[in-house]
Amino acid sequence: MYRSHTCGALRSEHIGNQITLSGWVQKVRDKGFMIWVDLRDRYGITQLIFDENRTPKDVFKAAQDLGREFVIKVEGTVIEREAKNPNLNTGDIEILVSNITVLNSSLTPPFTIENDTDGGDELRMKYRYLDIRRNPVKNNLIFRHKVSMEVRNYLSKADFIEIETPYLIKSTPEGARDFVVPSRMNEGQFYALPQSPQTFKQLLMVGGMDKYFQIVKCFRDEDLRADRQPEFTQIDCEMAFVEQEDILNIFEGLTRHLLQEINNVTVSEFPRMTYNEAMRTYGNDKPDIRFDMKFGELNQVAQHKDFNVFNQAELVVGIAVPGGSSYTRKEIDKLIDWVKRPQVGALGMVYVKYNEDGSFKSSVDKFYDQEDLKQWAQATNAKPGDLICILSGPADKTRGQLSALRMELAERLGLRKAEEFAPLWVVDFPLLEWDEETQRYHAMHHPFTSPKTEDIHLLETEPGKVRANAYDLVLNGNEIGGGSIRIFDKQLQATMFKHLGFTEEEAKAQFGFLMDAFQYGAPPHGGLAFGLDRLVAILGGQETIRDFIAFPKNNSGRDVMIDAPSSIDKEQLKELSIKLDL
Amino acid sequence: MYRSHTCGALRSEHIGNQITLSGWVQKVRDKGFMIWVDLRDRYGITQLIFDENRTPKDVFKAAQDLGREFVIKVEGTVIEREAKNPNLNTGDIEILVSNITVLNSSLTPPFTIENDTDGGDELRMKYRYLDIRRNPVKNNLIFRHKVSMEVRNYLSKADFIEIETPYLIKSTPEGARDFVVPSRMNEGQFYALPQSPQTFKQLLMVGGMDKYFQIVKCFRDEDLRADRQPEFTQIDCEMAFVEQEDILNIFEGLTRHLLQEINNVTVSEFPRMTYNEAMRTYGNDKPDIRFDMKFGELNQVAQHKDFNVFNQAELVVGIAVPGGSSYTRKEIDKLIDWVKRPQVGALGMVYVKYNEDGSFKSSVDKFYDQEDLKQWAQATNAKPGDLICILSGPADKTRGQLSALRMELAERLGLRKAEEFAPLWVVDFPLLEWDEETQRYHAMHHPFTSPKTEDIHLLETEPGKVRANAYDLVLNGNEIGGGSIRIFDKQLQATMFKHLGFTEEEAKAQFGFLMDAFQYGAPPHGGLAFGLDRLVAILGGQETIRDFIAFPKNNSGRDVMIDAPSSIDKEQLKELSIKLDL
Repeated sequence: MYRSHTCGALRSEHIGNQITLSGWVQKVRDKGFMIWVDLRDRYGITQLIFDENRTPKDVFKAAQDLGREFVIKVEGTVIEREAKNPNLNTGDIEILVSNITVLNSSLTPPFTIENDTDGGDELRMKYRYLDIRRNPVKNNLIFRHKVSMEVRNYLSKADFIEIETPYLIKSTPEGARDFVVPSRMNEGQFYALPQSPQTFKQLLMVGGMDKYFQIVKCFRDEDLRADRQPEFTQIDCEMAFVEQEDILNIFEGLTRHLLQEINNVTVSEFPRMTYNEAMRTYGNDKPDIRFDMKFGELNQVAQHKDFNVFNQAELVVGIAVPGGSSYTRKEIDKLIDWVKRPQVGALGMVYVKYNEDGSFKSSVDKFYDQEDLKQWAQATNAKPGDLICILSGPADKTRGQLSALRMELAERLGLRKAEEFAPLWVVDFPLLEWDEETQRYHAMHHPFTSPKTEDIHLLETEPGKVRANAYDLVLNGNEIGGGSIRIFDKQLQATMFKHLGFTEEEAKAQFGFLMDAFQYGAPPHGGLAFGLDRLVAILGGQETIRDFIAFPKNNSGRDVMIDAPSSIDKEQLKELSIKLDL
Repeated sequence: MYRSHTCGALRSEHIGNQITLSGWVQKVRDKGFMIWVDLRDRYGITQLIFDENRTPKDVFKAAQDLGREFVIKVEGTVIEREAKNPNLNTGDIEILVSNITVLNSSLTPPFTIENDTDGGDELRMKYRYLDIRRNPVKNNLIFRHKVSMEVRNYLSKADFIEIETPYLIKSTPEGARDFVVPSRMNEGQFYALPQSPQTFKQLLMVGGMDKYFQIVKCFRDEDLRADRQPEFTQIDCEMAFVEQEDILNIFEGLTRHLLQEINNVTVSEFPRMTYNEAMRTYGNDKPDIRFDMKFGELNQVAQHKDFNVFNQAELVVGIAVPGGSSYTRKEIDKLIDWVKRPQVGALGMVYVKYNEDGSFKSSVDKFYDQEDLKQWAQATNAKPGDLICILSGPADKTRGQLSALRMELAERLGLRKAEEFAPLWVVDFPLLEWDEETQRYHAMHHPFTSPKTEDIHLLETEPGKVRANAYDLVLNGNEIGGGSIRIFDKQLQATMFKHLGFTEEEAKAQFGFLMDAFQYGAPPHGGLAFGLDRLVAILGGQETIRDFIAFPKNNSGRDVMIDAPSSIDKEQLKELSIKLDL
């Protein structure tokens, strides 16, 4: 037997008990006549004591040879600790060791196994199995498990069935790039790994499964931006005989349940906002509404004066920065430099200090008087003591720039509080978006998203204006889920494919099975998918998904621990009927 | 709103209510003045009634045009049914329809959507979304979900953490063939899809996660035998600081819990049997012990007479077939033909009728007297009325043949009862097995399995005799799980690789990261994996896993519904730096 208790279990009520513990040596303090060892396992840390006077000689000697991360088993007696440690669950006791077995030795680890480690990112990735021993990573993985279990139990109780869809599917050209898998048994042919189980969940609805969910890996062979993984996990859901309202209600319920159970945070009804409103008010389709700083459009009050920069701009728009009127000239100049960085791309920034005494001081005092600036303050909802930051230019671009500034300032002002949760539904997304590169419209969500009935007539004339029955769930400025009511009419689906630039043949080759299925009584249906990695990170109060993935890949899509991908031998290639083409 | 209730919800207590239902038209009975429609959804069937006298004209007309599998929404009143149907939950009521909306029409389905369908296997696979509408398939998928949820909740309550391991990993040459995935970002290199998360779960143990599980897809590019799928699902588990006994207890607990919760069957402690005993007693390492028919070895009592066939055989072994003494000569001849089929491969069969009067009649009366045959009866535990079937030849081969006969006879005799459950642990598997093709030893379980300490000295001299700390959980003649205590000592692992024919370089290239990890304090650990597809099928009282998979592949690894795998275009190949080599 390796242990009678875990290293997190013993309390003062166990004093006098004979126990057995196993675990890792976290720390050794050797005072010569007395040796203390912190023994660690998943459940906690227990202090061991080896006393020259009370410990058998060979045991004491063995303790002298212990190193960090050795794996040991000890037998001993639970005794009261002299210097109690209130920060430790087991801090009232220690173990007077009578017997020790070294189960395994350890080289000195390449970084310290402490909450704050001295290891850099790459090193921690390479030795991920050591990194996982650290509390922050270990706790993240346990947290992720807890969230997954809550999701499953909640949906299962709501009559959803988890159904496993296949991983070896068919390559489709739409959207991001597929990972493909050559088939040995079907020479020259390839499976694809799913970017999502989208078509399968729709087929399950055609199959009458009514309420489906799955926590499932998805794959995208995209160039990796920061904090993207080539494989990622979705909570994928679909329902039949529902309207948008039904879906929003169910998944609002799920999210509220998670916030309650996981974070002990009670959230009332989620606000809703149209895509257009979100863009106008926050310059962003996933606004962080934990804080205000709403956009105020200033075209009416700022144009038609002598300031040409504004007069020529499609949009003049500002935000009020709480307490910003006290910024020094230097601080403001830095802010202007910040918005001019290529990543943001503004050409400049106009600012107005709304002084505590009610007066205004702006960078454009030459063109605007106090009355003008008061109107600006009203439009941006500024209060005395605020700083109004104003950008101008083409509408979409300028909104994006001001959104970036808004987020940056909120971050600096500490308004993005990890323990606060502000969920939001963004609805009525555009059906299509124009792609400059291919010079055609793409489905913003995916090609199965239904247009709003009242907008269908615009498909031919103003396709960019057609709104979709599509929605995103936004939490603290992150899109954590998105979905849509699907097209369930074969004819409308065919029309959509046409508008997306598919020939009839291409549509048939790629989605023929779905269109076939729609001939046999497809029910109205819709669904949603959550990004589990991101959801877990946000619930965990962090921004980086990598810390919530047991074995993440780096930005080149490599697993540096196992050194994958790697080359495979010629025989294997031959069997797969492929060769390299470098 | 598409529905106020599901099609399985309404009872006599709802009589008089105005309700809305949506679903599929299962059946239409048009009597001219009266039309009955069975409306189906996932939850059940509700009868609709359209009455020329009571139903609005246009609604009645619409009902006349309904076809099978049309999707409709109806509003109406719950009324008492005249001819009640006790076989239906909703059989006491019907809906007098006042309004109907045809949500979608349907072509006539290619097979009937009934419990017993007229569709063949390939047709059902091609239109799997229609097959799923049928109760047997639908219920199997719901059953699978229920089993998965029970597994997760049980293990989670037992402190196991579900941790997602990566799908894009590194190709290893050991065992069955890997599916590989060319990497676009790492030219000329490939990921592999995991055959199991074996090394990752061991790394999680090194990482101190202590108790891990995962319900996870695994992939094997093997030639598909009947009822094998290229992608399959495992319940994968691993524990640290455990001995074999701990693992058997935990997973015996899980299995017992499933049998109780899912099948309402209470099972006492699982019997255990060594591999050698299973082979000697049942000729099989996964014996079905729902019935007896144990092997009786007859060498001692049947050899050294004048019957040369037996005298020259390494093994003479028989089983007693309950009630078999009444078989006619013709029936027995057929049995002999059956064992001579190439799939079984026996050269012949000797039989002894143990007559009800206590006398014996055998096919070898020329060589053996009644006293001899009585001894045979004792050895095979035969009773008056039984038939003893005896095979002889090389020991291993003969055992396999007699095992096949035993299973066949049990099937014919109805002894393999789907509602009976006989679990069994088979332990002490051999560590290595000789492979004729490669002329070397292979790991029977996998290269990380630990040998029994007391057998290690045999590794050099009689490797085939070394027993492993490896175990299988057998249920009703099927291996549903298997595992082992792992090697956690780097030196022993290196020795094992050597015995498995790996050069040091090969071992380093393939498993270097695991051996590296073992240098940093690997704890003793072990685990087990269940085959979920098979487990679910057996708990569901069926033998075919395909019926418990939403979208299975056929025997050529093809998904005939979506037509995958398929060819991909040249541009895609070029991006992946590969070309076809047909």
